[in-house]
Order: sequence, then C-alpha cells, then structure tokens
Amino acid sequence: MKEWESNIRRVEPYVPGEQPKISDVIKLNTNENPYPPSPAVKEAAKKLNINDCRLYPDPEVSDLTGAIAEFYGVDKDQVFVGVGSDDVISMCFLTFFNSDKPILFPNISYSFYSVWADLYRIPYEKQPLDKDFKINPSDYYKDNGGVIFPNPNAPTGLYMELDAVEDIIRHNQDVVVIIDEAYIDFGGKSAMDFVNKYENVMVVQTFSKSRSMAGMRIGYAIANKALIKALNDVKFSFNSYTMNRTSIAYGVASINDNEYFEKCVNKIIETREAAKKSLTELGFSFPDSKSNFIFATHKSVPAKEIFEKLKEKHIFVRYFNQPIIDNYLRITVGTDEEMSKLMDALKEIVA
Amino acid sequence: MKEWESNIRRVEPYVPGEQPKISDVIKLNTNENPYPPSPAVKEAAKKLNINDCRLYPDPEVSDLTGAIAEFYGVDKDQVFVGVGSDDVISMCFLTFFNSDKPILFPNISYSFYSVWADLYRIPYEKQPLDKDFKINPSDYYKDNGGVIFPNPNAPTGLYMELDAVEDIIRHNQDVVVIIDEAYIDFGGKSAMDFVNKYENVMVVQTFSKSRSMAGMRIGYAIANKALIKALNDVKFSFNSYTMNRTSIAYGVASINDNEYFEKCVNKIIETREAAKKSLTELGFSFPDSKSNFIFATHKSVPAKEIFEKLKEKHIFVRYFNQPIIDNYLRITVGTDEEMSKLMDALKEIVA
Repeated sequence: MKEWESNIRRVEPYVPGEQPKISDVIKLNTNENPYPPSPAVKEAAKKLNINDCRLYPDPEVSDLTGAIAEFYGVDKDQVFVGVGSDDVISMCFLTFFNSDKPILFPNISYSFYSVWADLYRIPYEKQPLDKDFKINPSDYYKDNGGVIFPNPNAPTGLYMELDAVEDIIRHNQDVVVIIDEAYIDFGGKSAMDFVNKYENVMVVQTFSKSRSMAGMRIGYAIANKALIKALNDVKFSFNSYTMNRTSIAYGVASINDNEYFEKCVNKIIETREAAKKSLTELGFSFPDSKSNFIFATHKSVPAKEIFEKLKEKHIFVRYFNQPIIDNYLRITVGTDEEMSKLMDALKEIVA
Repeated sequence: MKEWESNIRRVEPYVPGEQPKISDVIKLNTNENPYPPSPAVKEAAKKLNINDCRLYPDPEVSDLTGAIAEFYGVDKDQVFVGVGSDDVISMCFLTFFNSDKPILFPNISYSFYSVWADLYRIPYEKQPLDKDFKINPSDYYKDNGGVIFPNPNAPTGLYMELDAVEDIIRHNQDVVVIIDEAYIDFGGKSAMDFVNKYENVMVVQTFSKSRSMAGMRIGYAIANKALIKALNDVKFSFNSYTMNRTSIAYGVASINDNEYFEKCVNKIIETREAAKKSLTELGFSFPDSKSNFIFATHKSVPAKEIFEKLKEKHIFVRYFNQPIIDNYLRITVGTDEEMSKLMDALKEIVA
C-alpha cells in the first residue's frame, strides 16, 4: 500500500435503498410520499428567476428558516436548515458529540447513526429494543456522551409516547438529546415543545416524507438558540452555502401550504390503516406503525423470499439482511392503487 | 459551563462575503459571474417535472458525472460531484488528510483551508508566498500529510504555470495533492491531464464562477478511480443524496452548452484586461490576474478607505482585514457597464 493510500479514511458507507432505473415499477422501498409536492411548489418553480442562479444563495437561508419558524411558532434563530435531515444530523454528530463517553441509540434504528459515529470517530453503544421492538427508556439512564433516537423509530414504525420521551430527556440533562422525527407527521405527537423546556434538546424533521420533497433535500433542526448557533458555526466551517436557490424557494412554498400537507398526510394514514387490515388477513404481523411504512413479517413465508418475488413483479420493498430483523420487510405506504396491486401480488406469493 | 456545552465542537467559522439585501447595488465582492446561466438551463428548468421531486434523486448523480466526464474526456468513475467545490474540498480533507504530518498550503490563499483543517483536527503549515505573491514550489518539497493550493491562487488571482504545478506534484508522490481550479477557466491551463499521469492528484472545479451557477451549488473533483471511490465512500457515510433534482438537471444543461460558456468566459477576460488598464491609470497596481477578479492596491489611498467609500456608493468589493494583504481590494470583474461605474467611483475616491 502506498503512503497516500494509508492516509485515506476507511469507512463502511451507508447503503441507500435501491433506486430502480427501469420505469413501470411500484416503488415502496425508500419511504417516499406517493403524492406530488404542493401545487404551490410548482408555482414557486415557475416564478423563480433562473438568471438569479448566477448569484450565491442567502447563506443564512433566512426565507426558509423564517417560514419554518412561523409554522412551528418558534424564533427564527431556533431553526437550522440542511441538505436533508441526513446533513442536519451528521452536522449534529460533528458539533455535539465530542465527549469520550459513548453516545447511545437503539440497536434497531436508522442505520446511518453508527455510520456517522464511525466517520467522526465517536464512541457509541447500541441499546437493545425489547422483544416487541420497543425502546426501554431506562436503557438511556446510564452515563453517556449524547442520545439520539428516531420517533417513530425506523424501520419498526413504532411511536413512543411523549412521557417516555421526556423521561429519557430528564435523565440526560448533561448531554445533547436529539429526537429524529422524520416520520412524526404520520400520527405521532412531536417533542417540539420540549425544545423550549429543556435547553439540551434538539428535534430534527424533514421535507422528504410528509412534504413529498425527497428530491429537493431539505431537513431542519429546532432547538434553543445556543444549540442552533453552535450548529451554524460548524456548518459555516464546512460549507457556507449548502441550500441552493431552488430548494429555498420550493421549501418556503411547501411549508406555507398547510392545507395540502394535511390532506396528503391524512390520506396516507388512511391508506396505511387499510393496508394493516389487508396484511393481517394475509398472515402478516407488524408493530403498530405511526409512520408512512409498515414493518411486516409473515407467519410462514420468509421475508427474503417475498422480497425477491415482489422484485420479479417489479414491486420494490426494503429488506434488511441483518440480525433480529432479517425476517421483516419495510413496506412504504403508497397510493391506494399501488397498495392494492401489492396485496394482489402478496396474495399470490404467500398463498 | 454545563457539561453538554463543554462537548460542543468550537470552531472559528469562515465568513463569506457580504450578501447585501438592498437592491440597486453593484456587487463585485464574491466573484460571481455577471452573466446569467446558459439559456439551456432555463429550458431544463421548464422541462423538469416538479412532481418527480417527491422521489429521492439518483444518489450516484450519474447524469451529471456522465456529462462532466464527457466534457473532459475522462471516465465517469473519475468524477465526483458535490454541493459546490466547498463541499467537495471539505470531503477531500476528511477523506485524504488523515496523516499526523501537517498538510501544506499557501499562507495567502483560500481562507477555508485552515477552517476545514481546524474543523477536522488536521495539522497544517502555511507556506509563505514570495514578495510578488508567487508560490515557491520548493516550499512544498518537505515531508507533509498532503498538499492543496488554488491555481490561479485566491485572492491574488496569480496563475502558476503547469511545469511548476508538476514540480510540486513530482516532489509529493506519497500524499494526495489537490489543485483547486475554481478560477482556471479565465485564462489558465488546467492540470486535468495530470490526473491520469499521477495517481495521487485531484483537480477540483466549480460551476459557481465560469458557469454562472453560484446559486445552484455544484462543484466537482476529477482524479483516478481509486481516489474517487474513497471520496464517494466518505460521501455515502455522510449523506447519500447531496445533489437535489434541480441542481442535477441544471448542471447537465449547463455543461452541455459549451458555446455559451466560452462566449461568457471570453467576454469576462476582455473586460478584465480593460479594467487592468483603467486601474493602472488610476494609480492601482496588482498581480497579473488570470481569474475573474483583480487584487489591487493603490499607491496612496488605503484599501480600507476605498472599500468603505465604495460601499457608501453602493458598490461592494471584498476587503480582507488581515496581515500582508490589508492594503488590497479584491474586485470581481463585472459587466463593462458595472466596471465603468466602478472606475468613475474610484476616480472620485483616489483623486
């Protein structure tokens, strides 16, 4: 090995869900929203002056942090915006998790957490879920360098009630606690109120799921001003201008159209609840999802087999080939029509 | 200080050039292109289906790496794309500069280099420019953990001939050498050919300057496949989807319109050469710029005074309040009309 090669940072990169390049597929594998972005986004796209793209965007992204702050009734200085919640959480790891003590997160959870910890050389200890995939708050009472968990959890879809969330926060006043709420809009209650009650709490959300904007890469964090300032200082040490002009304009238009947002979210919840019934009838069981996906296992047919047979029928769901969850499929909630085609296919496979 | 505060990463963030929010200004302070993006970008914007924004973008950004590869006649696997060249170079620091030895870069140079090194705890040693602001290649012969320099250099605008660039590369076969060519299209010769001759060389460029797309955040690196793979592994450990759908579509349209690109670049070179004459007549001197800016000092009036008086007239240029260069102004080359207004204002100020 040459010397320059020995200085390359070795990492085990995250593997995102497949993005099939063939058309005519039913894509239920990356938790995208089946409905298009708000019509207001289309209007914003039309109005955007492409000639302005010669100029740098606003490094403070004021229009977008302002619109998000207004939506949640917080101060603009309590909002940080990034290139998807992955960018936001990665920056949080780099900014807040600089203790020698291990950070804590669930053993079954968003798989990027351990990837970021490895990337930034942050020690971590995964905490086991119980046999029903539930987070046990008392696992997070021990001495640590920081806490992060998704609520609802991924890929289980399980929502933890706010009193349990607050219990974890109360036992962790010496570290930053990050609540990753990528899926909160699909039926859970946000921990947003805790950011003004506890100065060490950060709530992270995204436009990728409930706002149908995965393709635009917009995520945000809300916390007290001191945490947001620290996060901005690191962001400005990394890249002054992370949000391009289109994402700022589209993001503002999207968050201002609350009526469309609620309509889409409610439709997805309705479809999810119907899908739960159909899956149960087909012999599947699953934790009770409050997200836009269902994490299901079948009583007799192995998940891997179902995954492969669905793929042959051009229906993509997500399969994680890893201990504990290797007999589960994560199925994104699509349109009613897509779910009906999925159920027809599953009926043939598990018959 | 609370314990969670003590674990926050302390950084000295980069301060980008002012983005004045008043209109009717002449903005020559952040090296933006005075001309709009290619008309092909406007067409691409019209064609983009906003409904597709519900879906994640291609994590491999194949369309854009493919178009860039074709433009430079390299393999697609030799191209890495990021959110502006700041994102690209920051990822390079994290990926390649993991030695205990200091990395080397010029003392007067892009000020982000020391910010990234601090952020990632990379040791560094700045190498002094000579009295004419020239890089002395032999300063880079010593044992080190990596080398990076801009060519043309910023904020001096001075271009280094390729034989000097190659001399630095030849003396640094054990580390990764990054050549930051943000301004190369304005009259210099790219070191692009060296990426196939030397396996440790990486060339970084951007759409922000010569392609009038600062607002879209697109930068790229070209190198051998092994370096690009290492960079992608780190990128996928950070954020799988950094480029949104609009930046990919606009980027492809832009790089495919070579005729417009050359027309703009040549016009800026022409305006720059005329500006050099006018500035000389007004008593300014400057290193001979091959970039889209001129780094000028006046024989009698202090730079800071000129900077402030220009600002009163709503003309923004860049002033760096730091040793060695605190009597210089970095003036972006605008349109002929903007430069003529600038010269009129300067005439009054230095009279």
